[in-house]
Amino acid sequence: MPTQTKTTTKKAPASRRPVSSSRRTTNRRSSSSRTTNRGKATASKPAVAEKLVAEKSGKAPLRFVPLGGLEEIGRNMSYLEYEDEIIITDMGFQFPEEDTPGIDYIIPNISSLIPKKENIKAVVITHGHLDHIGAMPYLLGPLGNPTVYAPRMAKALIEKRQAEFPNAPRPNIIEVAYGETKKIGRFFELDFFGVEHTIPDSMGICITTPIGNIVNFGDFRLDRDEKGNIYRFDEIERIAKKGVYAYLMDCTSAATEGFGISEKEVEKNLEELLKKAEKRIILTTFSSMITRISEIIKIAEKLDRKVAINGRSMRENMEIAKTLGLVKAKEGTLISIQEVNKHKDEKVLIITTGAQGESNSGFMRIVNGEHRHIQLKKTDTVIFSSSVVPGNERSVQSLTDGIARQVDEVYNYKLMDIHAGGHATSEDLKIVLKALKPEYLVPIHGYYHFRTVARKLAMSIGIKRDNVKLPDNGDVCLLTKDNFEITKEKIDTSYVMVDGLGVGDVEEVVLRDRRMLAEDGMVVLIVTLDRRTGRILKNPDIISRGFIYLRDSQELLREIRRKVRGIVGRLPQRQNVDADYLKSLFRDQIGQFLFHKTRRRPMILPVIIEV
Amino acid sequence: MPTQTKTTTKKAPASRRPVSSSRRTTNRRSSSSRTTNRGKATASKPAVAEKLVAEKSGKAPLRFVPLGGLEEIGRNMSYLEYEDEIIITDMGFQFPEEDTPGIDYIIPNISSLIPKKENIKAVVITHGHLDHIGAMPYLLGPLGNPTVYAPRMAKALIEKRQAEFPNAPRPNIIEVAYGETKKIGRFFELDFFGVEHTIPDSMGICITTPIGNIVNFGDFRLDRDEKGNIYRFDEIERIAKKGVYAYLMDCTSAATEGFGISEKEVEKNLEELLKKAEKRIILTTFSSMITRISEIIKIAEKLDRKVAINGRSMRENMEIAKTLGLVKAKEGTLISIQEVNKHKDEKVLIITTGAQGESNSGFMRIVNGEHRHIQLKKTDTVIFSSSVVPGNERSVQSLTDGIARQVDEVYNYKLMDIHAGGHATSEDLKIVLKALKPEYLVPIHGYYHFRTVARKLAMSIGIKRDNVKLPDNGDVCLLTKDNFEITKEKIDTSYVMVDGLGVGDVEEVVLRDRRMLAEDGMVVLIVTLDRRTGRILKNPDIISRGFIYLRDSQELLREIRRKVRGIVGRLPQRQNVDADYLKSLFRDQIGQFLFHKTRRRPMILPVIIEV
Repeated sequence: MPTQTKTTTKKAPASRRPVSSSRRTTNRRSSSSRTTNRGKATASKPAVAEKLVAEKSGKAPLRFVPLGGLEEIGRNMSYLEYEDEIIITDMGFQFPEEDTPGIDYIIPNISSLIPKKENIKAVVITHGHLDHIGAMPYLLGPLGNPTVYAPRMAKALIEKRQAEFPNAPRPNIIEVAYGETKKIGRFFELDFFGVEHTIPDSMGICITTPIGNIVNFGDFRLDRDEKGNIYRFDEIERIAKKGVYAYLMDCTSAATEGFGISEKEVEKNLEELLKKAEKRIILTTFSSMITRISEIIKIAEKLDRKVAINGRSMRENMEIAKTLGLVKAKEGTLISIQEVNKHKDEKVLIITTGAQGESNSGFMRIVNGEHRHIQLKKTDTVIFSSSVVPGNERSVQSLTDGIARQVDEVYNYKLMDIHAGGHATSEDLKIVLKALKPEYLVPIHGYYHFRTVARKLAMSIGIKRDNVKLPDNGDVCLLTKDNFEITKEKIDTSYVMVDGLGVGDVEEVVLRDRRMLAEDGMVVLIVTLDRRTGRILKNPDIISRGFIYLRDSQELLREIRRKVRGIVGRLPQRQNVDADYLKSLFRDQIGQFLFHKTRRRPMILPVIIEV
Repeated sequence: MPTQTKTTTKKAPASRRPVSSSRRTTNRRSSSSRTTNRGKATASKPAVAEKLVAEKSGKAPLRFVPLGGLEEIGRNMSYLEYEDEIIITDMGFQFPEEDTPGIDYIIPNISSLIPKKENIKAVVITHGHLDHIGAMPYLLGPLGNPTVYAPRMAKALIEKRQAEFPNAPRPNIIEVAYGETKKIGRFFELDFFGVEHTIPDSMGICITTPIGNIVNFGDFRLDRDEKGNIYRFDEIERIAKKGVYAYLMDCTSAATEGFGISEKEVEKNLEELLKKAEKRIILTTFSSMITRISEIIKIAEKLDRKVAINGRSMRENMEIAKTLGLVKAKEGTLISIQEVNKHKDEKVLIITTGAQGESNSGFMRIVNGEHRHIQLKKTDTVIFSSSVVPGNERSVQSLTDGIARQVDEVYNYKLMDIHAGGHATSEDLKIVLKALKPEYLVPIHGYYHFRTVARKLAMSIGIKRDNVKLPDNGDVCLLTKDNFEITKEKIDTSYVMVDGLGVGDVEEVVLRDRRMLAEDGMVVLIVTLDRRTGRILKNPDIISRGFIYLRDSQELLREIRRKVRGIVGRLPQRQNVDADYLKSLFRDQIGQFLFHKTRRRPMILPVIIEV
């Protein structure tokens, strides 16, 4: 993979203004109880409110609590709390981990917010990706359906997704545009500004609070025009002028060296590939990359190719984008996937979802020969304008192999710059830091290591180590005008897992069982005893799944039965056998026997029936 | 990650000699039966043998059969068969896949070789990595314990590993050195040559056969001295001079652009890091990277640091390497891990295994604070001189996060060139191809897509597409002097899985059950019926694991019991209930009910006891 080192115009000076204070108060715990958990306090008492506003000298601390996104990729959610007013930023989910089998996704734990849900004045959404909006249908209801402020595209996506949750309350969304400001409650003011990311209408928020401005760019990258000028850099400068107390910085790609690849560069390379292709082109990318898709459509029009969109999520996103005017295709350019075969191969470009090798995607159906309208041809050109999301390496490899068997020309980001990620890389982060000059830096969106890499970056341009704050999920931070303290107070942020219709009902014990069952399977022993004598009445039944193919293991089955009889036979003969004791004997002795025989540890589930 | 573009001396001309023939015989199936499965034919009948030797005009085809390593990374094994003589190359295993839960590893399927095991004249091992030697304890016995030819380090590793398999026959290994030749049987001659890889004593083999020379480099990379001269290039030139009929080329890193990073470059960067470190250094790498470890020890000696090796596999490998003279540490440099704390931090370097985040490694114990002698300190410098093996991304991230929480200075290959992979990258492969000028190229060691990328590389320097052969595992290839044909004959290469003591006893059905159990768990329904009436005798027992936490789901439990009673109640009342029919009713109806209630599909296991 080539270095992502591109030239850029440096707009920000290298120097940093000195921060006003880097003292770290030794202990502010004493004040924290004052602001914790104030229950059902409401904010709409004008007299009290005015008094409080008058007091907003900034001496009372602002509470900042990240609920997710600081120790993982995903589950982004945090809140600010001043007196009895709360503003939440984002409500994302996280995709499951290797050690959470069967789980659909993990959502932020809001148990600490529920008792003070009346205090929630606003939920601010930075953009429409699921790691920022995915948990809304689960969380808005329990939080009393607070008002949501979201940019246009995110609003449309939230509303579309709502259809899948008929029982969740209809969200109350106020659409906000860049440059708008909103006064929220008595203490906060929101100032929305545009940032570049891989979905349209991404925005950053500058939240003015009694103690200073808290700036969160959401997910962002720097993008540049052909001359290397950074888009929307004026927005960053505008926010910088307001003065930044704390900058919550997306550090997903902090460990990626150099400057980001520009979208223009990606489009140029894609255009070259598209020109070179002699027959049909199938291009796959993320379904939310509306801007890139829109540019590809323009290139297709130049090359006189029709464009068909394949995959439900991309089609739906395109519908939204068209309604919002984000995609402007000429009459006749877009054709349905059914029409593809009516056109000559050299006149067709198919854009499809499924770049991650998702087993149920439209692209996988094409590759597996199961698509109703599209079959791969040797003469096709397949282009992956996408990266591999960590964890999907194996499935993307299978997909690519499946394509390479049928198609000669396959291109991916390893072979050329035909994808740019959505997150600012190290040099770009430095540019932003130099421009914003925050008093405190809080790297967010990323694993702990990424956050320490971001701290190193910041230190390399003169930010003091003590002014870079690395709270974990659930750490309560107390912010005053002259101090940012990570307290010892900890909010519960344990996993809340969504599995089918269940939210939070899958606990660690269930997951542990799933992992055990996946490893060595299980054996059920059904032993029927005579209630009066404690003797075995019939041949023990044995059911096993995932352990060994029992039909091929008759001898082992016989030995298990012999062992079971032996265990019961050695018990003193009497009425009312202690079933729990007997079960523990089965678990231990049959477990040991099977381990000795197979070096596997299936779960042993004894059932004792007394008749 | 920076571009791996380093200058190099070009020794090979860009032109290629024309290949003698690129015809592809339309159908050679008729001749294949002649060489298939000749059963227990033995080779030691001199009269017949001489006759055959006289006939070795090269008109009879040589069979080449890859048994593994062509559709995956790992499980490397292939064989050549001419008349009644067989030579096997490598016997590796593959680590388990996501869809093979609980499996230890996957070994090559030798069912096609067992009937003709008497014909096996030699097993040639290219180097001592487990993906090339790991299956030997399982396969040598069933194949009649044929003679093994292996380089020094591989021999030592095979013999060490033998201790774990007391029931496997002791392998009969002949140690071979670079430059040696061995006549094998009547038809083959082996010529061993040195290649660069990440374990010492790696070798390539040129097998002279009646139809031409088959060259296999095993795993290899090009490595260079400070001036850019390629090590052992004379060996490649020597083999090229013999003439290469088919070149079996390691294409693991064919999709990695540019030239490889040299080990000298890596060592230089490591030396800089080591010099910079003010206190203790903990460096982690692969335990088989003896050469790099040896160089690091030399650097440590320069810097007056003691070296402690942590982790059983690395200590054992070092013992072997010392015995073989591959590591030459001065008296007193190497200290035991127990002694580390007797020395000042600035005088200590710990080299450890566990770079992949393996949960039971010595490194993980250090990071988790469970190591008996080593605790991480804030002042430590931790260096990952390793890459992330695909599939280990998540565990390496956890490990890195755990370190970043305790240590300020953490370096990995993303931040600087402190690791070089073991496989030749695209530009280096071109250099070898230009030098070797093979008539046929067979890219091996890699997924299908990697092999097509290798084909593109070859075509870019003038090799004809038809002369690049992409057989799959099990494809029988018939090689004659003027043709290389992938026939339609297919050898069984289905997965043979090792799970505990079982080899091949875990079949797809068992894995499918494990995957199902991991997804949604299972529910056992135990229903006791009166044999005479078919009526339920007692409250049905329900056991569930991995589905839902039943203790919190009493209402669901009651509903299941009610459903079970309902199903039995609706049956006509009679003697001898059809248990299979009743079970299928339970599976369907309880399964549907649970899906409706939870959107999960646990495995339903009904047990019917008639008393």
